[in-house]
Amino acid sequence: MAAITYELKKTCKQSGARLGTIHTPHGAIDTPMFMPVGTLATVKTLSPEELEDMNAQIILSNTYHLWLRPGEDIVQEAGGLHSFMNWDRPILTDSGGFQVFSLSDFRNIKEEGVHFRNHISGEKLFLSPEKAMQIQNALGPDIMMALDECPPYPAEESYMKASVERTSRWAERCLEAHRNKDSQGLFGIIQGGEYEHLRKQSANDLISLDFPGYAIGGLSVGEPKDVMNRVLEFTSPLLPIHKPRYLMGVGSADSLIDGAIRGVDMFDCVLPTRIARNGACMTSRGRLVVRNAAYARDFSPIDSDCGCHVCRNYSRAYIRHLIKSNETFGFRLTSYHNLYFLLDLMKKVREAIMEDRLLDFRDDFFEQYGFNRPDAKNF
Amino acid sequence: MAAITYELKKTCKQSGARLGTIHTPHGAIDTPMFMPVGTLATVKTLSPEELEDMNAQIILSNTYHLWLRPGEDIVQEAGGLHSFMNWDRPILTDSGGFQVFSLSDFRNIKEEGVHFRNHISGEKLFLSPEKAMQIQNALGPDIMMALDECPPYPAEESYMKASVERTSRWAERCLEAHRNKDSQGLFGIIQGGEYEHLRKQSANDLISLDFPGYAIGGLSVGEPKDVMNRVLEFTSPLLPIHKPRYLMGVGSADSLIDGAIRGVDMFDCVLPTRIARNGACMTSRGRLVVRNAAYARDFSPIDSDCGCHVCRNYSRAYIRHLIKSNETFGFRLTSYHNLYFLLDLMKKVREAIMEDRLLDFRDDFFEQYGFNRPDAKNF
Ligand SMILES: [Zn+2]
Ligand SMILES: [Zn+2]
Repeated sequence: MAAITYELKKTCKQSGARLGTIHTPHGAIDTPMFMPVGTLATVKTLSPEELEDMNAQIILSNTYHLWLRPGEDIVQEAGGLHSFMNWDRPILTDSGGFQVFSLSDFRNIKEEGVHFRNHISGEKLFLSPEKAMQIQNALGPDIMMALDECPPYPAEESYMKASVERTSRWAERCLEAHRNKDSQGLFGIIQGGEYEHLRKQSANDLISLDFPGYAIGGLSVGEPKDVMNRVLEFTSPLLPIHKPRYLMGVGSADSLIDGAIRGVDMFDCVLPTRIARNGACMTSRGRLVVRNAAYARDFSPIDSDCGCHVCRNYSRAYIRHLIKSNETFGFRLTSYHNLYFLLDLMKKVREAIMEDRLLDFRDDFFEQYGFNRPDAKNF
Repeated sequence: MAAITYELKKTCKQSGARLGTIHTPHGAIDTPMFMPVGTLATVKTLSPEELEDMNAQIILSNTYHLWLRPGEDIVQEAGGLHSFMNWDRPILTDSGGFQVFSLSDFRNIKEEGVHFRNHISGEKLFLSPEKAMQIQNALGPDIMMALDECPPYPAEESYMKASVERTSRWAERCLEAHRNKDSQGLFGIIQGGEYEHLRKQSANDLISLDFPGYAIGGLSVGEPKDVMNRVLEFTSPLLPIHKPRYLMGVGSADSLIDGAIRGVDMFDCVLPTRIARNGACMTSRGRLVVRNAAYARDFSPIDSDCGCHVCRNYSRAYIRHLIKSNETFGFRLTSYHNLYFLLDLMKKVREAIMEDRLLDFRDDFFEQYGFNRPDAKNF
């Protein structure tokens, strides 16, 4: 039995979006869904109980960061990431590649892997497909990601082609090096930038390796939104129907809906927790910067349409006071609300798919959110 | 009916410590007890639910800080502090005097009150007995404190005598200015430093004003521990038996036990949450600095004798990792444990009083904690 399987339950007649379930060793996940990010084995400011309370079904943690701190050996000695951080629902870890490409000061990409310097200590390190597997096998998440090369946007076609081919060779080495196939599922990552024929080549290569799931990589790296949508439109149909599809690094409300419409099942992003630490909130009526002076005497909740614990118990005035005073509890409250908002959004997306009305839902949501206004503010 | 009443339930035959109940508009409190400090209408890093979960019966909030941020008028508009911060158990606020004397850069003490500068903005402000009452009436805690002059330690006898007399005159003005006698109880503060006759003078003055409770002020300001104990020994018997006694600013385990033995019913201190933010924990076997390298692979709880949520679910290795990584959740975990530790200690103190064995309890606790060792480390 494979560690990870995907069950397609329904396709939205109006939009083509997929309703499904991913089965993992730590339980089932309804899709489309959003994964809160817990970089260092903690979703910033929040407890596992709070994540359960808001119905987070799965969280993502970062291989690169855990490799450096506390080290995958310590996590393994603790009995793996679930036990280390007291979270018994599914976990996905990335490969570490994205951070090596974006955070490290010095890096040298070779066929064998990437030489780079630790962004904290400056120490020389080496990440290869085999190393990415060894670390993730030690961390013990339900879903692991293959090491890919992450090209910048925009990238020349010739560079992108070479990169796609290297990513395919690395994917094969990852599969070979993966030791825990019964308890951890390894996903491949389709690259190819905005080049349709390269996305096709990447998908063909990776599908032939028969991964239990596929990510669409190289998006949300600075490209315009219509480029992302176009790439999803021609990449999604290349992927097997009975495997989950994961769009990495996407967490704004509009992109989650538009991704689901284009056949995406899984999303993750630090956006909701990162903006929360600046006092910015996602609401059904658009962005609300609760630290603004306008809310000093506003005793209404962040979002009066939100049913979360924060909106049921705390006012904008109180949260503004906490954030202005740099009080941790303020950041807890905005982080909680923002994650709840996206998890609840995905629940509504699933309900709309069930009822074949996701395009109508999109219209209503965008109108109320203010995305259709000329001065629309996103994140 | 007075807002605050005290019921003496039992006196420990072995130690003379008092077991009692304080009745407040927001419920009853078992004494002796410890109050977590929520300076800015939040006990740093923690939620009201967590405080309830650890059986905090009452919290303390700071008048000075709330006056400056967000302003007592905003708290009043929110329906008072309980509603503003979503805490429906009792609250005590201090008078603001201690912060004016310790935090403000410039201060000028006159009979009418204290002129000083806001420690954040530099703005000129004035705190008088009447102002301290107006602010606390607006904040709406169950227990308010009279404005006293807080002399430094040590202070000359002549200075202390003048200060005691001023504190008595201010106490009388506070009583006159207090507007909500039915819903808020105002405590007087006995001063006098280490001078027995001045403590007696202060107690006599304040008892004649018939406050519903008395604090013993001017301790925990840098004096040696035996001075504190001696002052408690001669001050406590001066106070009415049927009123609660509050020792301000004390939060180390040894001083809580020694204070209870000397007839104190109430304590507060920022110590447990402040040291938590440095990764230092109170345990039944003494101080444990969980951020130390020794705990990197220690998968046991902070305190294996502790039954708190943190010790039941998280290891020293995980908490160390979080604190080394500056992750908020780590500070939440150490703050929770430390407060639980003191609240649980006070529960054990109450049980020992009930069973007339508080001196035995003190011996056992001090021995296990390590207070009797020559290298004993306190906080
Ligand atoms: Zn909410
Ligand atoms: Zn504990």
